[in-house]
Amino acid sequence: MFTSRSIGRVATPYTESKQIPKGLGAKHAAEGRLEILPEFEAGLMDIEGFSHLFLLWEFDRSEGFDLVGRPPIDDRPHGVFATRSPRRPNPVGLTVVELIRRDGRVLHVRGVDMLDGTPILDIKPYLSSIPQEKLRRGWLAEAEARRESATGS
Amino acid sequence: MFTSRSIGRVATPYTESKQIPKGLGAKHAAEGRLEILPEFEAGLMDIEGFSHLFLLWEFDRSEGFDLVGRPPIDDRPHGVFATRSPRRPNPVGLTVVELIRRDGRVLHVRGVDMLDGTPILDIKPYLSSIPQEKLRRGWLAEAEARRESATGS
Repeated sequence: MFTSRSIGRVATPYTESKQIPKGLGAKHAAEGRLEILPEFEAGLMDIEGFSHLFLLWEFDRSEGFDLVGRPPIDDRPHGVFATRSPRRPNPVGLTVVELIRRDGRVLHVRGVDMLDGTPILDIKPYLSSIPQEKLRRGWLAEAEARRESATGS
Repeated sequence: MFTSRSIGRVATPYTESKQIPKGLGAKHAAEGRLEILPEFEAGLMDIEGFSHLFLLWEFDRSEGFDLVGRPPIDDRPHGVFATRSPRRPNPVGLTVVELIRRDGRVLHVRGVDMLDGTPILDIKPYLSSIPQEKLRRGWLAEAEARRESATGS
C-alpha cells in the first residue's frame, strides 16, 4: 500500500463537475495543460515523441465509493468497475490525452475531462490500440441504442 | 491524497520479474485471473459485457523511484513518464487485458504482465482506441529500428 503524491496539476476549462461532458462514450476535445512540478520535470525526458499519453489523476473532490450506481448516460445501475464513476475504492481517474506540444515542464494536451486543478499521479506513454472490430462495449452500447431509438435519431 | 487499498489480487504465471516479457512494445499473451475480494464483488456487475479492461495495479515489490532510467529494450536513458518503469513516484501499473470470462468474483483474462499476487487497485472498461495511423511511439520506435538494423532482421 502507498500514499498518493501529486506530480503536478491539470489546468482545464472545467470549474464545476456539471460542465464536463459525461458518460463512458463522451467525446472529449477540450484542451488543457499538464503543469508538472519542477522536482519531477526530469521525468518528462523524451515524452514529446509520443502522440498520446495515459494520464492517471486523482478524484480529489470525491469522497467514499459506491459499488453500484447509475451513470449519467443510463437509467440502469451498473457496477463501479464497469463505469467511470468518481466514487471508486481507489479514487484514480484515467484519461487518454493527445500531446499537442511540450513547453518545458508544461504539456499542452487535448482531451481533458477533469476539473481544473486536479492532481496528476502519473503519465505513461500510450502505445497500442485494440482494433475496433475486436472491441465489445457492454451496457454502454445497449444504453446508446436505447437512447437513439427513444429520440428517433 | 489517498492511501491505496487492494480490491483483489492478480494470479499470473510470473513469480520472478525476469520471466515477464519486457519493454514498452512487448506482446503479452499470458493468461491470468483477477481474484476480486468478496466485499468488492458487487462492483463487477455488468463487467462481462466488455471485451477489454483497463487494470490498475500496484508495483508492490518496487521501492522508491528514478526520474530517468534505461529501459530493458534500449541502451539510452529516458524519463520515467516516457517508460513503463516500475520505479515511479506513484507505483501504479496499467495493463489492458482481454476479458475471457467471468466466474463469480474471478475474472479470467489474457494479457497479464505483472508478478503473481500483485494487488489490484481498480478495473475500468476499455472503450476507445486511437487509430494506428495517428499514433507516434517516440523513442520506442527508434530503439526498435536500431535493434532491427543491428540484428539484420
